[in-house]
Amino acid sequence: MRDILEAVADGSLSPAEAEARLAGYATTGAGRFDAARETRRGVPEAILAEGKTPDETATIAVAAVETSGRALVTRASADHAEAVADALPDCTIDRDARAKTVVACDSSFERPDLDATVGIVTGGTSDAEAAGEASVVLREMGVSVERVEDVGVAHLGRVLDHLDLLREVDVLIVAAGREGALPTVAAGLVDTPVIGLPVSTGYGHGGDGEAALLGMVQSCTVLSVVNIDAGYIAGAQAGLIARAVAGARQTDQ
Amino acid sequence: MRDILEAVADGSLSPAEAEARLAGYATTGAGRFDAARETRRGVPEAILAEGKTPDETATIAVAAVETSGRALVTRASADHAEAVADALPDCTIDRDARAKTVVACDSSFERPDLDATVGIVTGGTSDAEAAGEASVVLREMGVSVERVEDVGVAHLGRVLDHLDLLREVDVLIVAAGREGALPTVAAGLVDTPVIGLPVSTGYGHGGDGEAALLGMVQSCTVLSVVNIDAGYIAGAQAGLIARAVAGARQTDQ
Amino acid sequence: MRDILEAVADGSLSPAEAEARLAGYATTGAGRFDAARETRRGVPEAILAEGKTPDETATIAVAAVETSGRALVTRASADHAEAVADALPDCTIDRDARAKTVVACDSSFERPDLDATVGIVTGGTSDAEAAGEASVVLREMGVSVERVEDVGVAHLGRVLDHLDLLREVDVLIVAAGREGALPTVAAGLVDTPVIGLPVSTGYGHGGDGEAALLGMVQSCTVLSVVNIDAGYIAGAQAGLIARAVAGARQTDQ
Amino acid sequence: MRDILEAVADGSLSPAEAEARLAGYATTGAGRFDAARETRRGVPEAILAEGKTPDETATIAVAAVETSGRALVTRASADHAEAVADALPDCTIDRDARAKTVVACDSSFERPDLDATVGIVTGGTSDAEAAGEASVVLREMGVSVERVEDVGVAHLGRVLDHLDLLREVDVLIVAAGREGALPTVAAGLVDTPVIGLPVSTGYGHGGDGEAALLGMVQSCTVLSVVNIDAGYIAGAQAGLIARAVAGARQTDQ
Amino acid sequence: MRDILEAVADGSLSPAEAEARLAGYATTGAGRFDAARETRRGVPEAILAEGKTPDETATIAVAAVETSGRALVTRASADHAEAVADALPDCTIDRDARAKTVVACDSSFERPDLDATVGIVTGGTSDAEAAGEASVVLREMGVSVERVEDVGVAHLGRVLDHLDLLREVDVLIVAAGREGALPTVAAGLVDTPVIGLPVSTGYGHGGDGEAALLGMVQSCTVLSVVNIDAGYIAGAQAGLIARAVAGARQTDQ
Amino acid sequence: MRDILEAVADGSLSPAEAEARLAGYATTGAGRFDAARETRRGVPEAILAEGKTPDETATIAVAAVETSGRALVTRASADHAEAVADALPDCTIDRDARAKTVVACDSSFERPDLDATVGIVTGGTSDAEAAGEASVVLREMGVSVERVEDVGVAHLGRVLDHLDLLREVDVLIVAAGREGALPTVAAGLVDTPVIGLPVSTGYGHGGDGEAALLGMVQSCTVLSVVNIDAGYIAGAQAGLIARAVAGARQTDQ
Amino acid sequence: MRDILEAVADGSLSPAEAEARLAGYATTGAGRFDAARETRRGVPEAILAEGKTPDETATIAVAAVETSGRALVTRASADHAEAVADALPDCTIDRDARAKTVVACDSSFERPDLDATVGIVTGGTSDAEAAGEASVVLREMGVSVERVEDVGVAHLGRVLDHLDLLREVDVLIVAAGREGALPTVAAGLVDTPVIGLPVSTGYGHGGDGEAALLGMVQSCTVLSVVNIDAGYIAGAQAGLIARAVAGARQTDQ
Amino acid sequence: MRDILEAVADGSLSPAEAEARLAGYATTGAGRFDAARETRRGVPEAILAEGKTPDETATIAVAAVETSGRALVTRASADHAEAVADALPDCTIDRDARAKTVVACDSSFERPDLDATVGIVTGGTSDAEAAGEASVVLREMGVSVERVEDVGVAHLGRVLDHLDLLREVDVLIVAAGREGALPTVAAGLVDTPVIGLPVSTGYGHGGDGEAALLGMVQSCTVLSVVNIDAGYIAGAQAGLIARAVAGARQTDQ
Repeated sequence: MRDILEAVADGSLSPAEAEARLAGYATTGAGRFDAARETRRGVPEAILAEGKTPDETATIAVAAVETSGRALVTRASADHAEAVADALPDCTIDRDARAKTVVACDSSFERPDLDATVGIVTGGTSDAEAAGEASVVLREMGVSVERVEDVGVAHLGRVLDHLDLLREVDVLIVAAGREGALPTVAAGLVDTPVIGLPVSTGYGHGGDGEAALLGMVQSCTVLSVVNIDAGYIAGAQAGLIARAVAGARQTDQ
Repeated sequence: MRDILEAVADGSLSPAEAEARLAGYATTGAGRFDAARETRRGVPEAILAEGKTPDETATIAVAAVETSGRALVTRASADHAEAVADALPDCTIDRDARAKTVVACDSSFERPDLDATVGIVTGGTSDAEAAGEASVVLREMGVSVERVEDVGVAHLGRVLDHLDLLREVDVLIVAAGREGALPTVAAGLVDTPVIGLPVSTGYGHGGDGEAALLGMVQSCTVLSVVNIDAGYIAGAQAGLIARAVAGARQTDQ
Repeated sequence: MRDILEAVADGSLSPAEAEARLAGYATTGAGRFDAARETRRGVPEAILAEGKTPDETATIAVAAVETSGRALVTRASADHAEAVADALPDCTIDRDARAKTVVACDSSFERPDLDATVGIVTGGTSDAEAAGEASVVLREMGVSVERVEDVGVAHLGRVLDHLDLLREVDVLIVAAGREGALPTVAAGLVDTPVIGLPVSTGYGHGGDGEAALLGMVQSCTVLSVVNIDAGYIAGAQAGLIARAVAGARQTDQ
Repeated sequence: MRDILEAVADGSLSPAEAEARLAGYATTGAGRFDAARETRRGVPEAILAEGKTPDETATIAVAAVETSGRALVTRASADHAEAVADALPDCTIDRDARAKTVVACDSSFERPDLDATVGIVTGGTSDAEAAGEASVVLREMGVSVERVEDVGVAHLGRVLDHLDLLREVDVLIVAAGREGALPTVAAGLVDTPVIGLPVSTGYGHGGDGEAALLGMVQSCTVLSVVNIDAGYIAGAQAGLIARAVAGARQTDQ
Repeated sequence: MRDILEAVADGSLSPAEAEARLAGYATTGAGRFDAARETRRGVPEAILAEGKTPDETATIAVAAVETSGRALVTRASADHAEAVADALPDCTIDRDARAKTVVACDSSFERPDLDATVGIVTGGTSDAEAAGEASVVLREMGVSVERVEDVGVAHLGRVLDHLDLLREVDVLIVAAGREGALPTVAAGLVDTPVIGLPVSTGYGHGGDGEAALLGMVQSCTVLSVVNIDAGYIAGAQAGLIARAVAGARQTDQ
Repeated sequence: MRDILEAVADGSLSPAEAEARLAGYATTGAGRFDAARETRRGVPEAILAEGKTPDETATIAVAAVETSGRALVTRASADHAEAVADALPDCTIDRDARAKTVVACDSSFERPDLDATVGIVTGGTSDAEAAGEASVVLREMGVSVERVEDVGVAHLGRVLDHLDLLREVDVLIVAAGREGALPTVAAGLVDTPVIGLPVSTGYGHGGDGEAALLGMVQSCTVLSVVNIDAGYIAGAQAGLIARAVAGARQTDQ
Repeated sequence: MRDILEAVADGSLSPAEAEARLAGYATTGAGRFDAARETRRGVPEAILAEGKTPDETATIAVAAVETSGRALVTRASADHAEAVADALPDCTIDRDARAKTVVACDSSFERPDLDATVGIVTGGTSDAEAAGEASVVLREMGVSVERVEDVGVAHLGRVLDHLDLLREVDVLIVAAGREGALPTVAAGLVDTPVIGLPVSTGYGHGGDGEAALLGMVQSCTVLSVVNIDAGYIAGAQAGLIARAVAGARQTDQ
Repeated sequence: MRDILEAVADGSLSPAEAEARLAGYATTGAGRFDAARETRRGVPEAILAEGKTPDETATIAVAAVETSGRALVTRASADHAEAVADALPDCTIDRDARAKTVVACDSSFERPDLDATVGIVTGGTSDAEAAGEASVVLREMGVSVERVEDVGVAHLGRVLDHLDLLREVDVLIVAAGREGALPTVAAGLVDTPVIGLPVSTGYGHGGDGEAALLGMVQSCTVLSVVNIDAGYIAGAQAGLIARAVAGARQTDQ
């Protein structure tokens, strides 16, 4: 803010222009999509397709590409994906049907490349969508991702098989539905920060991820959590931590 | 685990001793107090005094000091504090009445000293207990703490006054009750990871921190959260992130 | 009531007629659709199409036009709209597909024209339906409407761009989903009364507008709120306030 | 904001001073206590004593008096009240034990005097605290208050007895517990905006004001509501509406 | 029970037969469908079609007709209705599509004729299904029904128009959705027992009949209530009361 | 209402007096305490002492005695009882400490005597307060009461022991906590209408009467219910039914 | 039942006596205290002292001893315990202050001795009360108990230390609060049936045992659960299973 | 574990192989699908088809057959069933459309045959799916099943008709929706352990099985429960108990 004010003081910026810039600044507190924030935090803002028409989604995606060079659309149906692709013919479109995300970048956009890795552990096939959303965000932030999939249903042994790998990552996202105990188990095995991502599986009392969320906030280990199915938030939060670590590495080199 | 097995293979460890050690290893998944974990993660396990008698609390604290050199008791009444002090006459006792925590260390215990800082922002006087709990845990983990207190009631301007400071910290804990909007506001102003700590203020519908928790998990910014009033968890999670950053700094030097 | 009784006392009204009129009077307390109230408060009663068949909706609309010259149907599907139009061939039909409302007026109906303005701020595309409902009601009450749309997703800067405008309106409706923080932010920037309109977006814990409603009732600013997605109520309440202000202007001129 | 920027541009304000002022400006969005807002909206900020020690409360009250000439403490026990009085020996202290509020003003403080009236209707003795809180806030905002008390238990006839009076007020606050039907009844009898204030009476399923809140948000009349027992918010919102009406009267004179 | 035992004692009933009869007796406590109860209470047991296939529904209906001469199927789709009619070709089939009920009687079945009347008041079109279910049950119990329909939306004046009628009925069922205030209003106007029937209308917080149920159980008038949309229960309970009144009339004649 | 209007028409009543009377009439819909209703329905209005000071309670009780000859105070502590007795020295005071009720009647008050009986069945000692409240109301309405106490804990056999008695009563109130199954069991054994009265016993999930209320509204027998612990409402509703039956008996004699 | 009927048929039992016996039989379905059931199932009925006065508790205890030779009082304060002891001077009184239970037996009472063992695992000191309640019930049923205490806080290694022991028991009760993961962990290590006993520890969202209960019902292992803090039910259910196993052992010998 | 360590100590097992085996051991605590557990507990792990695509389900089923010789798929649509059958052409496929389960076994798989029986009582047609799931699991575990179906709607007398049979089974599963009283009734009639299986029937307040679950956990009889609709868990838990009984029988022979 000081920079802008100095520019006003020395006449290099008109009060009107300054007001526009400061408006952008002042309002970032509300946390919505704006290019300034993307630039500052490196987190691509998500456009939640759910509850929007394909046309509306595409219009917002175009605006995002224009201001930040990139658009990240989450919870996108095939129709949403098609509308975005049609509206942005000059963009590279990257669609992950499993995670229901679409990423559109203009040709000049350059993804960052951070020296940090996030591990994503999933308890089962049902966690794939939320975990995939986290994965896309991390890739877009320039963070490497190591996934250990389907730990819960048929291959839990892989947690320990990959223990060395998981201990080497900088942050761990653990997705789980039902009673949500997997993040607690994982947090006991590694030294890295763990983010619990509750998934809307389970049925009956406490189903749809509520028991998983409660189990994670009541966990007797050290965890922080995000909303049920909030893969984007889990990924972005892990990415911010990874970026901090990468920054520390870079600074000291 | 491999180390223990190799030791068994070469005869330097008996199967019985190995079993005892592996038992400790295998059960850390449940995330309870054990010295091994304290050593590995650097997080002092919390002994929740609430719901225990002073005597029970003191007994567990003694066990903690014996195995890890240190005991951290949270939500301790004056009676709990006294019982711990009486039971550990040779320990340095450090009591924070505001945060209702007691820390007891034996004389040989040496607190780590990490090159990392966590900022703790509180919305008001009512958040002091939860924030203080976070603060004590961070100090015990060897992390520097910068606090910006009472932002909400009479001195909100201090958020911006301390903006430079807050942008320099490695992680930010933001405690808030009522509608829990402060973490959202803060997360829009800084590039660091933000952990939302909902506090059990507020009354009526959604009171006791429930609205704050919901507001944080539904936030349209990037945040991870902990349970209502879970200052210990917020502090420890921030500490793990800070430790990762400090580790990155150290590694590269 | 006194007027009716005086008329009975002087014989100009029979007891039977008086009873019928008083019945209407006494029962307005229950707040349902009746022409008397529309006349008195200037608020067109809403016919909620949801949960009614098109035929039922049309029948009630016809009754409304007959008694009050106008029918306002909310949450109307295309079928509802068509049935209303078919049943009222002599009416001007005004359908807002986005807000899912249908207004039918007979040719002699004259909309009032009040010297007051209500601002409607929306956090995103998903809030369009609720905000549109409010907008239609206000127009029907004769109140001018200023809308600032899609503040949340790609154009939040427009809040400040339109700050002068928003400060000039007499009442502000702020619609928001997710954590519902936008009304709190807006209420801090203007001197006018703000009505929070929670919208059923958001997913997971506290989704479907519950977190937004909680956040608004727990807000540490001054707000009153309406039910989730209750655009009609928000609009009508804002209209009553605007009418009071317009009345004050008129009275004094 | 433009004024400040113009001042910077013409050199009459240094960038540093401008930043401090803009900081205050930008952060008002979070809605906490600050003198600027009090000046702008005329709403005295409330200091919620509940959950604070008497000393903490007094300290904040002193800060409030210093910055805005006045402190309004809600939900104050006798101890809170005494601490505030002791800390502000030069202030006029006005304590309403029923509403559990304390108002402290320095000698030079001049309360505004608005040409507008708010009516407060209560359903019974149990609503007195919430209604009294609203009443104090309105008085402090300079708005006249007309109260119709204990309508529900022994004197409901007084609603109609006072009907002329209630129709003359500019805004109506209706407090009610149990099933919360009184605001719905009242809103059917008057043309003024009605604010429902649910009160934490009632027992069993939906007790503690939850049924009252639900009844009010589901009301088929036009109402806006505030949180359970939120007398301060109801009063301040009614005061803002009353001020708008008073402003319209004044402007046109 | 004594009768059966006396019969066993005097040899007119074998122990085996007695056991079968007592079994039926003892288990009526669980309140399920059995012919004995229908005979005793005169309440036709309802077969809830929802959650059953048409075939299953028809099979149970056949069993009901065989044991009690009559089958009453509630919440029946067109498919359920058709399956019942097909399975009972010799029965009189009476289907109320609005109330989604099907009644099948064998030719010899004779409906009772009680000297008692129940009034059913509905707040609007959306209450028609629940009210219709109550109406069918009452007719089957031999109780006269007086309906005052659509009171809430366009014809509330009819409550008072029909006040004499409503005061003459023996019991009043009042169906209402949204905030559920209509039973409270009605109970204040009549001397007869009132049964509140909450209906699953309303949206947002407390929608789907929850606010209506809460408003009715928290009502400050005298009411008893049934489950949301439980038209069958409301009708049967009113029928039992009406039968008691009719019995008193008959007894004394 | 017609009577009043006819009186106005023939000059025997002034419009002003008529308005006052009609006001009382019109507002009874809100269901609060007024002498007119007590006269009409025979239900003594309850003054809920809980949440009122002894003085407030006594003041309202005095008003009740003045207008209706009687005051019924529920949930009264010893202090409430003493204050009522002190304030009404000329009244007969009847206090039931178990049911926490106080009844005060002036010397000229004559309790009605109806030819009808209500049975009250309780599941255990913990239900005594709610059942006692119902019992007092019934006595005041002039209805005979038959109680079968403590069925649940040590003497359940008494349900069947008293089966003849219970089948002879006109209405049955069944109070139960925990899972609330007793009303379902009882309703299967008798032909009379049953009112379920859930009681706030039970602990853990669904405790405090919530499971009992749910069990009763979900009951597959025919029951209507009242709020948790709402002994007064259960008693008054049973009394209204009993009065209807007594009226039928009287009418025909 | 057949036996009784045969006795009536052959004249060895009068119809009146038979009715009394069958009444006891028929009503056991409601599951309350009766000597017949104690005899049949071997489960001493619990008298829940909470919510009863000491006198009431003692009276019921005396009745229990008279009919079944034994009384088991749960959640008993010191006052309850004393009252029971005073009322039963000839009984052996066995009080477990930790589990808040009192057992009183007359001198002739002989506890059964079953060849079966139940293991009780507790997660921490806070689980002691619920676990102790289970332990007392099991002892009274004649089942051996093996306890592994305080697994969660300082000695989790003891789970594995005692693994052989735990695998040898016939049933396992696992008590846990917070996120309730311990039963899931234990069920993965043993082949015996596991009963989860959620305990009302934990704070914030999902505290008071709700998260533990949800975690257990959503567990992806095989578990059955009881209510929060329902130590008596957990113990009795485990005892019934143990008795079945003991019976199988005995039968075959 | 000791066996593995001894093998390492004597060189018959390499540390690497030991680590792999111990990993499997250590992780069984999380309770997911693994062949080791199936072998140990005899409970076929369930593959929940709901929320998985047919392809994903088939892939996991193939893995299950490969590791354990058998796959048990629950909540399988016709598409899921077909995909499993296609993927396992050499398997015996056993599909229960009612219970929505598919069992696939390779030709060499031999189901155990235990000397124990479980009874399954259902309250009505709607409980068939959950009960059928329990039945399939029990059959797969080698336990005999006795079913008493549709007790609730038309044939409740069959509970007593089959009383001898039900008393002979070793464990009883009782499925019930609505108010969930059937397990309480059944538990009063038999001496065997009863497992309550709440079913998602019922509508309105407490519908979808919530009232049934609450009624069962609040039951005053001795019951343990499983999640709503959790037929698999109920069956497996009953199977473990039955296996313990069968083991006791076998051991002693």
